[in-house]
Amino acid sequence: MVMNVRGYAAHSAESPLGLFSFIRRDPRPNDVVIDILFSGVCHSDIHNVRNDWGNAKHPMVPGHEIIGRVVEVGSAVSRFKLGDHVGVGCMVDSCQHCGPCGHGLEQYCENGNTLTYNDVDPHDGMPTYGGYSERIVVSDKFVVKVPEGLDLAAAAPLLCAGITTWSPLRHWKVGPGSRVAVVGLGGLGHMALKLAKALGAHVTLFSRSPGKDDDARRLGADRVVISTDKAQMAEVRGQFDLIIDTVPYVHDLNAYVKTLALSGSLVLVGYLGPLQDMLNTGPLVLGRKSVAGSVIGGIAETQEMLDFCGVHGITSDVEVINMQDINEAYERMLKSDVKYRFVIDIASLRA
Amino acid sequence: MVMNVRGYAAHSAESPLGLFSFIRRDPRPNDVVIDILFSGVCHSDIHNVRNDWGNAKHPMVPGHEIIGRVVEVGSAVSRFKLGDHVGVGCMVDSCQHCGPCGHGLEQYCENGNTLTYNDVDPHDGMPTYGGYSERIVVSDKFVVKVPEGLDLAAAAPLLCAGITTWSPLRHWKVGPGSRVAVVGLGGLGHMALKLAKALGAHVTLFSRSPGKDDDARRLGADRVVISTDKAQMAEVRGQFDLIIDTVPYVHDLNAYVKTLALSGSLVLVGYLGPLQDMLNTGPLVLGRKSVAGSVIGGIAETQEMLDFCGVHGITSDVEVINMQDINEAYERMLKSDVKYRFVIDIASLRA
Repeated sequence: MVMNVRGYAAHSAESPLGLFSFIRRDPRPNDVVIDILFSGVCHSDIHNVRNDWGNAKHPMVPGHEIIGRVVEVGSAVSRFKLGDHVGVGCMVDSCQHCGPCGHGLEQYCENGNTLTYNDVDPHDGMPTYGGYSERIVVSDKFVVKVPEGLDLAAAAPLLCAGITTWSPLRHWKVGPGSRVAVVGLGGLGHMALKLAKALGAHVTLFSRSPGKDDDARRLGADRVVISTDKAQMAEVRGQFDLIIDTVPYVHDLNAYVKTLALSGSLVLVGYLGPLQDMLNTGPLVLGRKSVAGSVIGGIAETQEMLDFCGVHGITSDVEVINMQDINEAYERMLKSDVKYRFVIDIASLRA
Repeated sequence: MVMNVRGYAAHSAESPLGLFSFIRRDPRPNDVVIDILFSGVCHSDIHNVRNDWGNAKHPMVPGHEIIGRVVEVGSAVSRFKLGDHVGVGCMVDSCQHCGPCGHGLEQYCENGNTLTYNDVDPHDGMPTYGGYSERIVVSDKFVVKVPEGLDLAAAAPLLCAGITTWSPLRHWKVGPGSRVAVVGLGGLGHMALKLAKALGAHVTLFSRSPGKDDDARRLGADRVVISTDKAQMAEVRGQFDLIIDTVPYVHDLNAYVKTLALSGSLVLVGYLGPLQDMLNTGPLVLGRKSVAGSVIGGIAETQEMLDFCGVHGITSDVEVINMQDINEAYERMLKSDVKYRFVIDIASLRA
């Protein structure tokens, strides 16, 4: 008794997204059936749709920043009940028995976790389809609770942009007294500012262009440093315990490494690929500094982040759009013309 | 009442080392006067003498792996007494009031520590001269005690090769259950094997060439992996919590990064400069891995390491030479023809 569901899909790397009907599985005993209310639009959705990473499976229904309402639960599900507001992020399954899974680090599952879309469900071999759709069926272990009081549309980006910046902030033990800098003010960067500030850190934004002061300060930055200004960069030399680098394209890290304090770490969360500007190891050795990386976060950590956001009243700054506006939204995102995340109101898909 | 002392010095970047007479300062209240017994020969001695790093001050008396006997102490010195066997490493002073100094991290002194040779004493403006000499005068804070029972000649390299590998092993919390790999089997590498093994780690040596198995296992390696053999490298993919990379010249890190476990760190202790083979950030992001660096170690940490070596009976594998053989020793070091450290018997200088 499978479900027919409507969504928006890309049928090839070149085609715009359009209406698509597909099937969601009949819930297994540990499944939660979720009517999707909002779906955030992540920059990686564009990369996936356009096959920038070479692994696109079309038709593709993107979306991994999902907020919805529970409408059915499998017989073995006890943590959720009908009507609960819940979230689903980038993963919908993992092996559950490797070392990382045992430590709640499903994002690093050794046997390959199952992504929310553009992947294949290991149990039934069916493609996974994401949040640009009416409804989703997800194993309860990969569903998180949305705390009361958060705006549901604005909470959606917490499921990717939020957890991607939260995880390194926690792994590198940011708290009161920490000096944190954030490179780039987009979907990830604006969440990093908010979360680092709420954790008690002194927060700096590195920006390549001026004019972001007011916004950055409103979002949590104590200071804005123009990274193309050598004098400003010299002023913050040796200052930061942690730099969260959200820039999604290749860039030179050496100038940022100089601003790390002794034993500090620069953590890449946006760019995967070779560093064309050769990394100089001198400052690493002479200052015990690290260049590291981090990807999304585990499920328990995602719940922790959402609970933290509930207590501190943190959500994303979003522009809510209709499903029908998605192709235009992609074009605007490519011009960085969004503050700071598009979120699709899935009611528009049902209308 | 300054002291006339004999040593071996290079008078220019091109000249061989030869006999040199110079003056050691009259001891200040907190100084320890040490008759030098043994001085290890570090690869950086050659770089300094030949001005490879562009900051050579000639005449230069190298040597920063010093073991000696206390022959006089200043009026304010209480920790040392005549006859004590003591060590001096790479530093003889630091500002003592910056953050790192306050945390026992004099190697990262923000105001610049004073190196044992090729530097200038900040108090009297005199050049510092190192361990290739009869006697040295050092502030008591920078003198460490040599535990009883260690062979004094073989203990000398602990002051640089030992602490340089000990410090990252401790900072990255190596202990029983840790999986450690060491890149390169020279002065630093052979100490890394011994120390990591004694800390309880499972230890692997990465070597570019075969034939080092017996030696590596004797020194503490549980396994030897030929880094040029792709099949062997594939076998250890994702295995290591910490890699201590002792290679002193530019090399490609990407193959080693792949062998790091989740959240693992590759720590450079030998090479300072740009990474000509572009570092790929993909494995860093997708495995929360770090590429980091570390330089020598603090004074308290050096004492901790020496005490640990005393308990575990650890010293360096050395070839003891006469002072007069130093130029030939340099030539052999440049051909990696030493197992694994030359140590000068300073008695030969007095003869």
